[in-house]
Amino acid sequence: MPRPGLTIAAGELAERFGLILQGDATRQVDGVGTLAGAGPTQLSFLSNPRYRSQLADSAAGVVVVRAADAEGVSRDLLIAGDPYVAFARIAALFEPARPIEAGVHPSAVVHPDADVHPDASIGPHVSIGARSRISAGAVLGPGCVVGEDCEIGAASTLVARVTLVRRVRLGQRVLVHPGAVLGADGFGLALDRGGDEPHWIKVPQLGGVRVGDDCEIGANTTIDRGAIEDTVLEHDVRLDNQIQIAHNVRVGAHTAMAGCVAVAGSTTIGRYCMIGGAAGIAGHLEICDRVMVTAMTLVTHSIREPGEYSSGTPLMDSRSWRRNAVRFKQLDALARRLRLPTKGNE
Amino acid sequence: MPRPGLTIAAGELAERFGLILQGDATRQVDGVGTLAGAGPTQLSFLSNPRYRSQLADSAAGVVVVRAADAEGVSRDLLIAGDPYVAFARIAALFEPARPIEAGVHPSAVVHPDADVHPDASIGPHVSIGARSRISAGAVLGPGCVVGEDCEIGAASTLVARVTLVRRVRLGQRVLVHPGAVLGADGFGLALDRGGDEPHWIKVPQLGGVRVGDDCEIGANTTIDRGAIEDTVLEHDVRLDNQIQIAHNVRVGAHTAMAGCVAVAGSTTIGRYCMIGGAAGIAGHLEICDRVMVTAMTLVTHSIREPGEYSSGTPLMDSRSWRRNAVRFKQLDALARRLRLPTKGNE
Amino acid sequence: MPRPGLTIAAGELAERFGLILQGDATRQVDGVGTLAGAGPTQLSFLSNPRYRSQLADSAAGVVVVRAADAEGVSRDLLIAGDPYVAFARIAALFEPARPIEAGVHPSAVVHPDADVHPDASIGPHVSIGARSRISAGAVLGPGCVVGEDCEIGAASTLVARVTLVRRVRLGQRVLVHPGAVLGADGFGLALDRGGDEPHWIKVPQLGGVRVGDDCEIGANTTIDRGAIEDTVLEHDVRLDNQIQIAHNVRVGAHTAMAGCVAVAGSTTIGRYCMIGGAAGIAGHLEICDRVMVTAMTLVTHSIREPGEYSSGTPLMDSRSWRRNAVRFKQLDALARRLRLPTKGNE
Repeated sequence: MPRPGLTIAAGELAERFGLILQGDATRQVDGVGTLAGAGPTQLSFLSNPRYRSQLADSAAGVVVVRAADAEGVSRDLLIAGDPYVAFARIAALFEPARPIEAGVHPSAVVHPDADVHPDASIGPHVSIGARSRISAGAVLGPGCVVGEDCEIGAASTLVARVTLVRRVRLGQRVLVHPGAVLGADGFGLALDRGGDEPHWIKVPQLGGVRVGDDCEIGANTTIDRGAIEDTVLEHDVRLDNQIQIAHNVRVGAHTAMAGCVAVAGSTTIGRYCMIGGAAGIAGHLEICDRVMVTAMTLVTHSIREPGEYSSGTPLMDSRSWRRNAVRFKQLDALARRLRLPTKGNE
Repeated sequence: MPRPGLTIAAGELAERFGLILQGDATRQVDGVGTLAGAGPTQLSFLSNPRYRSQLADSAAGVVVVRAADAEGVSRDLLIAGDPYVAFARIAALFEPARPIEAGVHPSAVVHPDADVHPDASIGPHVSIGARSRISAGAVLGPGCVVGEDCEIGAASTLVARVTLVRRVRLGQRVLVHPGAVLGADGFGLALDRGGDEPHWIKVPQLGGVRVGDDCEIGANTTIDRGAIEDTVLEHDVRLDNQIQIAHNVRVGAHTAMAGCVAVAGSTTIGRYCMIGGAAGIAGHLEICDRVMVTAMTLVTHSIREPGEYSSGTPLMDSRSWRRNAVRFKQLDALARRLRLPTKGNE
Repeated sequence: MPRPGLTIAAGELAERFGLILQGDATRQVDGVGTLAGAGPTQLSFLSNPRYRSQLADSAAGVVVVRAADAEGVSRDLLIAGDPYVAFARIAALFEPARPIEAGVHPSAVVHPDADVHPDASIGPHVSIGARSRISAGAVLGPGCVVGEDCEIGAASTLVARVTLVRRVRLGQRVLVHPGAVLGADGFGLALDRGGDEPHWIKVPQLGGVRVGDDCEIGANTTIDRGAIEDTVLEHDVRLDNQIQIAHNVRVGAHTAMAGCVAVAGSTTIGRYCMIGGAAGIAGHLEICDRVMVTAMTLVTHSIREPGEYSSGTPLMDSRSWRRNAVRFKQLDALARRLRLPTKGNE
């Protein structure tokens, strides 16, 4: 993926990003690649120890490594405290620039009471509702729908086909991927047992959604607006694709969630948490700062201690699994035979 | 979230909604709030016992409570059999009205053989296919796509960016949130082992989707159309976001599902069921009326008795979890040592 | 769902599809139905043994069955090696034809540097970005967004509201259902611990997505583009709805995944695998050919042997489940009492 035209010397990369060069400072780099795939004019990196064995054979011109991985290696290296961070910064140099075209595309439909900054870019087939405000440098890609009473902060981007339903406020430099829906009605229902046939009545969802600066929201992720108060993402929250955030949830700054996580209503999650893919978090819980949850775990109670949490059973071939899983139904009987108290060792 | 202009006395609320007033009938209310957040001109409610301790300190002007929670409380209360239902009705008074603009937006594309009622509202960038019918009072928000042979009943709303692919019939007062896709091809495949390289062939999906009156369908939820007959939601079915309903599923009236539930093909679910978030229900099953399934449970066989069902393991810190989870593989060996028969106590 | 006008004799079906007729060759068929629902002019099939008991009572005019199910049955049958495959082919005859209208709808917005074949069909409110190429016979339904540097192969179809973000290449005859998002940024983040407040920095996602011929991608499914190299689906991969494929994943030919599966980054999945609904597959794994994974299983390590794999616990009524599940926390203690070594029988 070389960006046509850009070539930069290893020595200049070292200087620009505060790295230590081991080898030839004049080595020219014109792109990035994986250890296995990079060629002699490309830069690669080694961060995950899983790939350490590929370092010797890689054809990459320059590799970013930790100091510990540089010892005794006789190829051109850049040494970084965190090679992945350094790589991220270098790779950004080679990302094709995508100039912003300020202005409103003629096919867009903007409500007369909306306020669109002249330096914002409003793409084809976008619609913007009453009393919504789009700040300078914001980009709304094709097919985005912004309802009423929304705000999109400076330099935020809705890539394409994003929906902000109503009362959604995004901070600055927020990035929202296609298909995401923010500000839909929270799932608030009350069962009316009054008549012959009990039926659901809808609880009005009067709140909004607030998203802090530098958040990223993945494709087809949904964040409902609050029932009364707002659903809140603090700054630098990073959500992968197909995540469901229910009404009145609050997610602390710098927390990241992998794809397909579901968080039920009114739960508060702390700062610097990392939630593994497809994990579920029940409603009305409090999760403290720096909690890690492994993939597909179900969190059913509040967590007050930082650390890593899990549920589930190990992967097995199905025949062995069936033989053992059926015994899960006898666990209590087993424990009773061994006279284990109900609350025992964990 | 006060709706500008509306103020109503506690006594009038009691009268209008059949509640018992305990306190000052002239107390004026101009909005609603949570127990923790409401001010002296706002109304709140206490339904979840988890929040009972907040009643004493709440600054709310009026609180809706159960009779049992009213005893000995010396503040202005409205007493209801079901405070949450009463709150839902009162809160609706303060919901900002959103007037419907009848007519077809000039950017919408309507097939000449479609039939759009003049009192329907068709928003920007909507497209409507041949032989589809949109009834009076229906609202199609920006970016909706309605394919061929669809029907949208009176006063139904597609909020924005909803797709009805083909042969989808919605009843009256159905509410569909953004990103939902109804009537896509069911996942019907047959492995053709005939040639050198076995490959999938597609089974035509000739059915449709039928959705009863008063259903609600969440953001980015998908409901495939049937292979031969229709996929059916009876009336008052309530689906949260990111739910997947496969082809030929039938969901009984008043059943509610929380976010991210997945129901596989040809399963029938009864009336008044409540399916917890991210639960999975296998295909070709029958679930009777009034079944509750807890979050992230996998239902692998038919359920013939009302009640609550679960699967999974409890949340633990990961170190303890690993120590125990590895022993899951020895469960059968454990049980054999204790000479438990294969079918034992549950 | 009869297609008006088409009537075909059982004998002709036998001849055209290489089936054996048992009964009346002149029996006329004008549509298809389920065993329970088909009438005397409709054809049905028996494949799943679960429905065998319905064969005797079915009012269907003709039924496609296996030879073993035909013995002693005195109704009109078509005998097939694989009745489901035969049914799929016959049913396709009755699928309403949907003629393709070549050309670009006037409401579509096509970048001057895009290349759209005159025999392609570009629907209302579509937008196509710079340097993208749409081949002959391709159909882009209403509301699709194709970004920059994409290719859509001959006879491929984006049903409606599909997004190809950037650098997405689809082969021939690929079918993508509404709401799918291909080519969004992979979830690449590095935690920069450099400043006062550690924060995430984005790792540029410089790769693309490559989808082979004859793939099908379900509604609201997401496939992220690669960080450096491409995310790849080989040919004839079949993905149901709401599947999440992270960056740098590679899925082998003929593999099928049921709804709501999540595959984490850099995992390689073999050919002819079948992944059950809502299963999760962790990142950086290798799954060999012909692996089956049951619904809601979490795959946490590489799989090198073909076969079926599972995790999870059986469904129980919640009271029994709670009694047993709490004992999961004592599993290690139980095993120790019985002096089972840590690595024991599986």
